Amino acid sequence: MSVEALEATLTLATVVEYLDRMGVQYKMDDAFGTPIVRSGWRFEVGAASLLISVSDSAHHTTRLEITCATQRRYPDQTEAVLHLLNTRNRERAFARSVDEEGVVFLEYVGFYPTGCPFPLSVFEVVFGGILLQFEEDYQAIEAVRLSEN
Amino acid sequence: MSVEALEATLTLATVVEYLDRMGVQYKMDDAFGTPIVRSGWRFEVGAASLLISVSDSAHHTTRLEITCATQRRYPDQTEAVLHLLNTRNRERAFARSVDEEGVVFLEYVGFYPTGCPFPLSVFEVVFGGILLQFEEDYQAIEAVRLSEN
Repeated sequence: MSVEALEATLTLATVVEYLDRMGVQYKMDDAFGTPIVRSGWRFEVGAASLLISVSDSAHHTTRLEITCATQRRYPDQTEAVLHLLNTRNRERAFARSVDEEGVVFLEYVGFYPTGCPFPLSVFEVVFGGILLQFEEDYQAIEAVRLSEN
Repeated sequence: MSVEALEATLTLATVVEYLDRMGVQYKMDDAFGTPIVRSGWRFEVGAASLLISVSDSAHHTTRLEITCATQRRYPDQTEAVLHLLNTRNRERAFARSVDEEGVVFLEYVGFYPTGCPFPLSVFEVVFGGILLQFEEDYQAIEAVRLSEN
Protein backbone atom coordinates (compact mmCIF):
# COMPACT_ATOMS: atom_id res chain seq x y z
CA MET A 1 0.00 0.00 0.00
CA SER A 2 1.35 3.44 -0.87
CA VAL A 3 1.91 6.19 1.68
CA GLU A 4 -0.83 8.19 -0.03
CA ALA A 5 -3.32 5.42 0.68
CA LEU A 6 -2.37 5.27 4.35
CA GLU A 7 -3.00 8.96 4.61
CA ALA A 8 -6.20 9.03 2.57
CA THR A 9 -9.13 10.82 4.17
CA LEU A 10 -12.82 9.99 3.96
CA THR A 11 -14.13 11.49 0.72
CA LEU A 12 -16.10 10.05 -2.19
CA ALA A 13 -12.92 10.28 -4.31
CA THR A 14 -11.13 8.03 -1.80
CA VAL A 15 -13.98 5.50 -1.85
CA VAL A 16 -13.96 5.52 -5.67
CA GLU A 17 -10.21 4.92 -5.69
CA TYR A 18 -10.67 1.93 -3.37
CA LEU A 19 -13.42 0.49 -5.56
CA ASP A 20 -11.07 0.81 -8.55
CA ARG A 21 -8.30 -0.98 -6.68
CA MET A 22 -10.72 -3.71 -5.57
CA GLY A 23 -11.87 -4.14 -9.17
CA VAL A 24 -15.47 -3.20 -8.34
CA GLN A 25 -17.47 -1.82 -11.30
CA TYR A 26 -19.52 1.31 -10.61
CA LYS A 27 -20.88 4.47 -12.14
CA MET A 28 -21.15 7.98 -10.79
CA ASP A 29 -24.62 9.43 -10.38
CA ASP A 30 -26.40 12.23 -8.58
CA ALA A 31 -29.19 12.06 -5.97
CA PHE A 32 -30.83 15.38 -5.13
CA GLY A 33 -27.58 17.21 -5.88
CA THR A 34 -25.38 14.81 -3.90
CA PRO A 35 -22.89 12.80 -5.96
CA ILE A 36 -23.31 9.08 -5.39
CA VAL A 37 -21.68 5.90 -6.55
CA ARG A 38 -23.95 3.21 -7.99
CA SER A 39 -22.75 -0.33 -8.16
CA GLY A 40 -24.09 -3.85 -8.13
CA TRP A 41 -23.18 -7.17 -6.65
CA ARG A 42 -24.02 -10.67 -7.79
CA PHE A 43 -24.40 -13.03 -4.85
CA GLU A 44 -25.01 -16.73 -5.35
CA VAL A 45 -28.51 -16.16 -3.96
CA GLY A 46 -29.34 -13.20 -6.26
CA ALA A 47 -28.32 -9.78 -7.54
CA ALA A 48 -28.20 -6.58 -5.51
CA SER A 49 -27.68 -2.90 -6.15
CA LEU A 50 -25.30 -0.80 -4.08
CA LEU A 51 -25.28 2.89 -3.43
CA ILE A 52 -22.49 4.82 -1.71
CA SER A 53 -22.35 8.47 -0.71
CA VAL A 54 -20.06 10.64 1.39
CA SER A 55 -21.56 13.93 2.50
CA ASP A 56 -20.33 16.66 4.78
CA SER A 57 -22.85 17.81 7.35
CA ALA A 58 -23.01 20.03 10.41
CA HIS A 59 -20.18 20.52 12.93
CA HIS A 60 -17.40 19.15 10.73
CA THR A 61 -19.10 15.79 10.54
CA THR A 62 -19.02 13.60 7.43
CA ARG A 63 -21.60 10.87 6.78
CA LEU A 64 -20.62 7.73 4.95
CA GLU A 65 -23.70 5.92 3.67
CA ILE A 66 -23.63 2.51 2.02
CA THR A 67 -26.91 0.88 1.02
CA CYS A 68 -27.59 -2.54 -0.50
CA ALA A 69 -30.96 -3.44 -2.04
CA THR A 70 -32.24 -6.79 -3.28
CA GLN A 71 -33.07 -7.04 -6.97
CA ARG A 72 -35.81 -9.53 -6.12
CA ARG A 73 -38.93 -8.20 -4.40
CA TYR A 74 -40.83 -9.91 -1.61
CA PRO A 75 -44.31 -8.33 -1.59
CA ASP A 76 -45.99 -11.61 -0.58
CA GLN A 77 -43.64 -12.33 2.32
CA THR A 78 -43.78 -8.96 4.08
CA GLU A 79 -44.67 -10.23 7.55
CA ALA A 80 -42.11 -13.03 7.55
CA VAL A 81 -39.47 -10.65 6.15
CA LEU A 82 -40.25 -8.03 8.81
CA HIS A 83 -39.72 -10.58 11.59
CA LEU A 84 -36.54 -11.88 10.03
CA LEU A 85 -35.04 -8.41 9.52
CA ASN A 86 -35.98 -7.44 13.07
CA THR A 87 -34.10 -10.44 14.47
CA ARG A 88 -31.09 -9.62 12.30
CA ASN A 89 -31.21 -5.96 13.39
CA ARG A 90 -31.17 -7.12 17.03
CA GLU A 91 -28.17 -9.38 16.58
CA ARG A 92 -25.98 -7.71 13.97
CA ALA A 93 -24.65 -4.33 12.93
CA PHE A 94 -26.37 -2.34 10.13
CA ALA A 95 -30.02 -1.37 9.60
CA ARG A 96 -32.35 -3.60 7.60
CA SER A 97 -35.77 -2.70 6.23
CA VAL A 98 -38.26 -3.54 3.49
CA ASP A 99 -40.22 -1.05 1.38
CA GLU A 100 -43.84 -1.16 0.14
CA GLU A 101 -42.80 -2.98 -3.01
CA GLY A 102 -40.97 -5.71 -1.11
CA VAL A 103 -37.41 -4.58 -1.84
CA VAL A 104 -35.13 -5.40 1.11
CA PHE A 105 -32.44 -2.93 2.17
CA LEU A 106 -29.36 -3.01 4.37
CA GLU A 107 -27.90 0.35 5.26
CA TYR A 108 -24.78 1.63 7.03
CA VAL A 109 -24.60 5.26 8.08
CA GLY A 110 -21.36 6.17 9.84
CA PHE A 111 -20.60 9.59 11.30
CA TYR A 112 -16.96 10.66 11.04
CA PRO A 113 -14.97 13.80 11.74
CA THR A 114 -14.53 15.64 8.43
CA GLY A 115 -11.04 14.88 7.10
CA CYS A 116 -10.87 11.64 9.08
CA PRO A 117 -8.13 9.23 7.96
CA PHE A 118 -9.75 6.40 6.02
CA PRO A 119 -7.31 3.70 4.95
CA LEU A 120 -8.24 0.98 2.47
CA SER A 121 -8.19 -1.63 5.26
CA VAL A 122 -11.05 0.12 7.08
CA PHE A 123 -13.08 0.47 3.90
CA GLU A 124 -12.55 -3.22 3.25
CA VAL A 125 -13.78 -4.11 6.75
CA VAL A 126 -16.90 -1.96 6.38
CA PHE A 127 -17.65 -2.87 2.75
CA GLY A 128 -16.83 -6.54 3.29
CA GLY A 129 -18.93 -6.66 6.47
CA ILE A 130 -21.89 -5.08 4.67
CA LEU A 131 -21.72 -7.55 1.77
CA LEU A 132 -21.36 -10.51 4.14
CA GLN A 133 -24.28 -9.48 6.33
CA PHE A 134 -26.46 -8.63 3.35
CA GLU A 135 -25.74 -11.98 1.73
CA GLU A 136 -26.84 -13.73 4.92
CA ASP A 137 -30.03 -11.62 4.99
CA TYR A 138 -30.70 -12.36 1.33
CA GLN A 139 -30.19 -16.11 1.83
CA ALA A 140 -32.55 -16.16 4.82
CA ILE A 141 -35.23 -14.24 2.90
CA GLU A 142 -34.89 -16.48 -0.14
CA ALA A 143 -35.31 -19.48 2.17
CA VAL A 144 -38.58 -17.96 3.42
CA ARG A 145 -39.80 -17.36 -0.13
CA LEU A 146 -38.89 -20.85 -1.32
CA SER A 147 -40.50 -22.51 1.70
CA GLU A 148 -43.76 -20.68 0.92
CA ASN A 149 -43.85 -21.74 -2.73
CA MET B 1 -12.46 23.61 23.96
CA SER B 2 -8.92 22.65 24.92
CA VAL B 3 -6.29 21.55 22.42
CA GLU B 4 -6.34 18.12 24.07
CA ALA B 5 -10.01 17.74 23.21
CA LEU B 6 -9.43 18.67 19.57
CA GLU B 7 -6.80 15.98 19.33
CA ALA B 8 -8.70 13.33 21.27
CA THR B 9 -8.95 9.94 19.60
CA LEU B 10 -11.80 7.45 19.70
CA THR B 11 -11.46 5.46 22.92
CA LEU B 12 -13.88 4.68 25.75
CA ALA B 13 -11.87 7.07 27.96
CA THR B 14 -12.56 9.89 25.47
CA VAL B 15 -16.27 9.09 25.41
CA VAL B 16 -16.36 9.05 29.23
CA GLU B 17 -14.63 12.41 29.35
CA TYR B 18 -17.24 13.85 26.97
CA LEU B 19 -20.10 12.45 29.05
CA ASP B 20 -18.54 14.12 32.12
CA ARG B 21 -18.29 17.44 30.30
CA MET B 22 -21.88 17.14 29.08
CA GLY B 23 -23.02 16.39 32.64
CA VAL B 24 -24.37 12.94 31.73
CA GLN B 25 -24.51 10.46 34.65
CA TYR B 26 -23.19 6.97 33.94
CA LYS B 27 -21.48 3.99 35.48
CA MET B 28 -18.78 1.72 34.17
CA ASP B 29 -19.65 -1.93 33.66
CA ASP B 30 -18.41 -4.99 31.86
CA ALA B 31 -20.11 -7.10 29.18
CA PHE B 32 -18.39 -10.40 28.36
CA GLY B 33 -15.02 -8.86 29.23
CA THR B 34 -15.58 -5.65 27.26
CA PRO B 35 -15.78 -2.47 29.36
CA ILE B 36 -19.02 -0.60 28.72
CA VAL B 37 -20.66 2.59 29.88
CA ARG B 38 -24.20 2.33 31.21
CA SER B 39 -26.36 5.39 31.38
CA GLY B 40 -29.98 6.40 31.26
CA TRP B 41 -32.08 9.12 29.75
CA ARG B 42 -35.41 10.50 30.81
CA PHE B 43 -37.47 11.65 27.84
CA GLU B 44 -40.83 13.34 28.26
CA VAL B 45 -42.40 10.21 26.79
CA GLY B 46 -40.57 7.75 29.09
CA ALA B 47 -37.24 6.51 30.45
CA ALA B 48 -34.55 4.74 28.47
CA SER B 49 -31.30 2.97 29.18
CA LEU B 50 -28.12 3.68 27.22
CA LEU B 51 -25.11 1.50 26.60
CA ILE B 52 -21.86 2.64 25.00
CA SER B 53 -18.82 0.60 24.07
CA VAL B 54 -15.65 1.19 22.06
CA SER B 55 -13.86 -1.94 20.97
CA ASP B 56 -10.86 -2.54 18.76
CA SER B 57 -11.36 -5.22 16.13
CA ALA B 58 -9.58 -6.62 13.09
CA HIS B 59 -7.44 -4.62 10.65
CA HIS B 60 -6.96 -1.59 12.92
CA THR B 61 -10.67 -0.95 13.02
CA THR B 62 -12.49 0.36 16.09
CA ARG B 63 -16.23 -0.13 16.64
CA LEU B 64 -18.23 2.52 18.46
CA GLU B 65 -21.55 1.09 19.61
CA ILE B 66 -24.30 3.14 21.22
CA THR B 67 -27.58 1.45 22.09
CA CYS B 68 -30.79 2.91 23.54
CA ALA B 69 -33.54 0.73 24.98
CA THR B 70 -37.03 1.65 26.13
CA GLN B 71 -37.84 1.07 29.79
CA ARG B 72 -41.43 0.35 28.82
CA ARG B 73 -42.16 -2.90 27.02
CA TYR B 74 -44.60 -3.38 24.16
CA PRO B 75 -45.38 -7.12 24.07
CA ASP B 76 -48.99 -6.51 22.98
CA GLN B 77 -48.08 -4.15 20.12
CA THR B 78 -45.41 -6.23 18.42
CA GLU B 79 -46.87 -6.15 14.89
CA ALA B 80 -47.60 -2.43 14.93
CA VAL B 81 -44.16 -1.73 16.43
CA LEU B 82 -42.43 -3.88 13.79
CA HIS B 83 -44.10 -1.91 10.99
CA LEU B 84 -43.30 1.40 12.62
CA LEU B 85 -39.62 0.54 13.23
CA ASN B 86 -39.31 -0.73 9.66
CA THR B 87 -40.58 2.57 8.28
CA ARG B 88 -38.18 4.48 10.54
CA ASN B 89 -35.28 2.24 9.50
CA ARG B 90 -36.10 3.01 5.85
CA GLU B 91 -36.13 6.76 6.36
CA ARG B 92 -33.58 7.48 9.05
CA ALA B 93 -30.08 6.55 10.18
CA PHE B 94 -29.58 3.93 12.96
CA ALA B 95 -30.98 0.42 13.40
CA ARG B 96 -34.21 -0.17 15.30
CA SER B 97 -35.56 -3.47 16.58
CA VAL B 98 -37.80 -5.02 19.23
CA ASP B 99 -37.00 -8.11 21.33
CA GLU B 100 -39.28 -10.98 22.46
CA GLU B 101 -40.21 -9.10 25.61
CA GLY B 102 -41.28 -5.99 23.73
CA VAL B 103 -38.28 -3.81 24.57
CA VAL B 104 -37.51 -1.42 21.67
CA PHE B 105 -33.89 -0.71 20.73
CA LEU B 106 -32.07 1.83 18.61
CA GLU B 107 -28.47 1.04 17.82
CA TYR B 108 -25.54 2.82 16.17
CA VAL B 109 -22.48 0.83 15.16
CA GLY B 110 -19.77 2.93 13.53
CA PHE B 111 -16.53 1.52 12.13
CA TYR B 112 -13.53 3.81 12.51
CA PRO B 113 -9.80 3.57 11.90
CA THR B 114 -8.15 2.79 15.25
CA GLY B 115 -6.73 6.02 16.67
CA CYS B 116 -9.19 8.11 14.64
CA PRO B 117 -9.53 11.74 15.82
CA PHE B 118 -12.83 12.07 17.67
CA PRO B 119 -13.59 15.62 18.75
CA LEU B 120 -16.40 16.46 21.19
CA SER B 121 -18.39 18.09 18.36
CA VAL B 122 -18.62 14.78 16.48
CA PHE B 123 -19.62 12.88 19.61
CA GLU B 124 -22.32 15.49 20.23
CA VAL B 125 -23.65 15.08 16.67
CA VAL B 126 -23.78 11.28 16.99
CA PHE B 127 -25.06 11.17 20.58
CA GLY B 128 -27.53 14.02 20.01
CA GLY B 129 -28.76 12.43 16.78
CA ILE B 130 -29.30 9.09 18.50
CA LEU B 131 -31.27 10.64 21.37
CA LEU B 132 -33.37 12.73 18.98
CA GLN B 133 -34.21 9.80 16.70
CA PHE B 134 -34.91 7.50 19.64
CA GLU B 135 -37.22 10.04 21.24
CA GLU B 136 -39.21 10.23 17.98
CA ASP B 137 -39.38 6.42 17.83
CA TYR B 138 -40.48 6.26 21.48
CA GLN B 139 -43.19 8.90 20.94
CA ALA B 140 -44.54 7.08 17.88
CA ILE B 141 -44.62 3.76 19.75
CA GLU B 142 -46.32 5.30 22.77
CA ALA B 143 -48.92 6.79 20.42
CA VAL B 144 -49.60 3.28 19.08
CA ARG B 145 -49.94 1.88 22.61
CA LEU B 146 -52.24 4.66 23.77
CA SER B 147 -54.44 4.40 20.67
CA GLU B 148 -54.92 0.69 21.38
CA ASN B 149 -55.96 1.20 25.01
